[in-house]
Amino acid sequence: MKQYVVIGCGRFGSSVAETLYKMGHDVLAVDGNEEIIQHISDKVTHAVQADATDEEILKTLGIRNFDVAIVTIGSNLQSSILTTSIVKELGVRYVVAKANTEIHAKLLYKVGADRVVFPERDMGMRVAHNLVSTNVLDYIELAPDYSVMEIAVVDEWIGKTLLDLNIRSKYGINVMAIKRKHEINVSPIAMDRLEKDDVLVVIGNNKALKKLEK
Amino acid sequence: MKQYVVIGCGRFGSSVAETLYKMGHDVLAVDGNEEIIQHISDKVTHAVQADATDEEILKTLGIRNFDVAIVTIGSNLQSSILTTSIVKELGVRYVVAKANTEIHAKLLYKVGADRVVFPERDMGMRVAHNLVSTNVLDYIELAPDYSVMEIAVVDEWIGKTLLDLNIRSKYGINVMAIKRKHEINVSPIAMDRLEKDDVLVVIGNNKALKKLEK
Ligand SMILES: Nc1ncnc2c1ncn2[C@@H]1O[C@H](COP(=O)(O)OP(=O)(O)OP(=O)(O)O)[C@@H](O)[C@H]1O
Ligand SMILES: Nc1ncnc2c1ncn2[C@@H]1O[C@H](COP(=O)(O)OP(=O)(O)OP(=O)(O)O)[C@@H](O)[C@H]1O
Ligand SMILES: [Ca+2]
Ligand SMILES: [Ca+2]
Ligand SMILES: [Ca+2]
Ligand SMILES: [Ca+2]
Repeated sequence: MKQYVVIGCGRFGSSVAETLYKMGHDVLAVDGNEEIIQHISDKVTHAVQADATDEEILKTLGIRNFDVAIVTIGSNLQSSILTTSIVKELGVRYVVAKANTEIHAKLLYKVGADRVVFPERDMGMRVAHNLVSTNVLDYIELAPDYSVMEIAVVDEWIGKTLLDLNIRSKYGINVMAIKRKHEINVSPIAMDRLEKDDVLVVIGNNKALKKLEK
Repeated sequence: MKQYVVIGCGRFGSSVAETLYKMGHDVLAVDGNEEIIQHISDKVTHAVQADATDEEILKTLGIRNFDVAIVTIGSNLQSSILTTSIVKELGVRYVVAKANTEIHAKLLYKVGADRVVFPERDMGMRVAHNLVSTNVLDYIELAPDYSVMEIAVVDEWIGKTLLDLNIRSKYGINVMAIKRKHEINVSPIAMDRLEKDDVLVVIGNNKALKKLEK
């Protein structure tokens, strides 16, 4: 079982820490704010109030024994970079850091981050796509021009079969599954007829998929 | 073409605004911070510095003519709720608001939000799952116990066929696609042999999928 230390427990950091703990992992949560530490203490293995830019404190906490560190300090660029650099130097093998901008990300990589994440930016893109196409419930980008999408059936498709819609030969899109209430049909056939509230899981290139967005 | 107004242009709000604009939509960006407005002004249709809790200003900006408002004010709970309430009262049909906690979300729904999003929490969960299973590149939750996953081929699978791995009958998981460099094979057959750096797109129930996670 891996040992994780999450440094900074704002909205993003606390979600990472609590999810890892729920999945059965050892999680140390560190934050400078006492109130935050009190709040998270029963949702992780250990919670410690400390200034993460203080190398001595991190040493005392035995940070070097952790397999993965996630640095989620947000607004203060200097603290984010300094902390990432210290954690890496102390010997943590895999360090993930949260960035606000591309420049911030570059600096994090320079001081040793193994992976940089942009939670707000990525989720902003996801929500924007979701707003524009109200029938696209979720998606995975497989390649720059290829995706898997979860799309809600629109009114004009109700009562039609997959053959009627002719999605495959017309658009080159594969229907991989049909979700109906709590049942998931992972081997849809041409004669399957769509019902209200069905959800299709489709795979195809983005230009083609765009034609299914309403 | 719909008209969007994004209120609050922090990391999340600016990403929503810029993505909508890139997708070809009309976007008005509003933020109280002048520097932020200057920075975003050439990435959206219009950018205005204003305090969004001031109803008169929002009226002057013609907010009621917008189809969708996205309120992304974060840290200040009171401003977030007040702004959401005013925007809805002015007549915007669809109002999305960002929340920090469940209580915050409840209040936003009470004052009229049509949809509440938790970008940091959701992305925290996503990153945590991703860290634990290093071969899971992305996923869509279709139902509480059913997902589509994008998984990297692990060493022990290289050189084997899908038939050798016997994923379908052994685990009840369907392989929907194999991604190899820039090619995507959406009709994989039993004799397809996996190579290093291949990525599989699989669908199945979560318990079964867990067995593919490394
Ligand atoms: N030097 C530090 N040592 C320990 N914790 C810190 C330090 N600096 C910031 N933090 C903590 O990191 C957390 C995240 O920081 P902040 O709120 O600035 O970022 P944010 O990006 O707005 O967060 P989020 O969007 O995830 O809520 C806060 O709880 C803060 O107390
Ligand atoms: N009353 C207001 N009127 C207009 N803009 C506001 C108001 N209050 C806050 N904002 C703006 O909203 C944006 C987001 O607020 P804040 O930085 O507190 O939230 P956040 O959740 O940390 O943001 P993010 O994580 O998206 O970067 C900021 O750019 C801020 O200037
Ligand atoms: Ca903040
Ligand atoms: Ca992906
Ligand atoms: Ca944030
Ligand atoms: Ca989903």
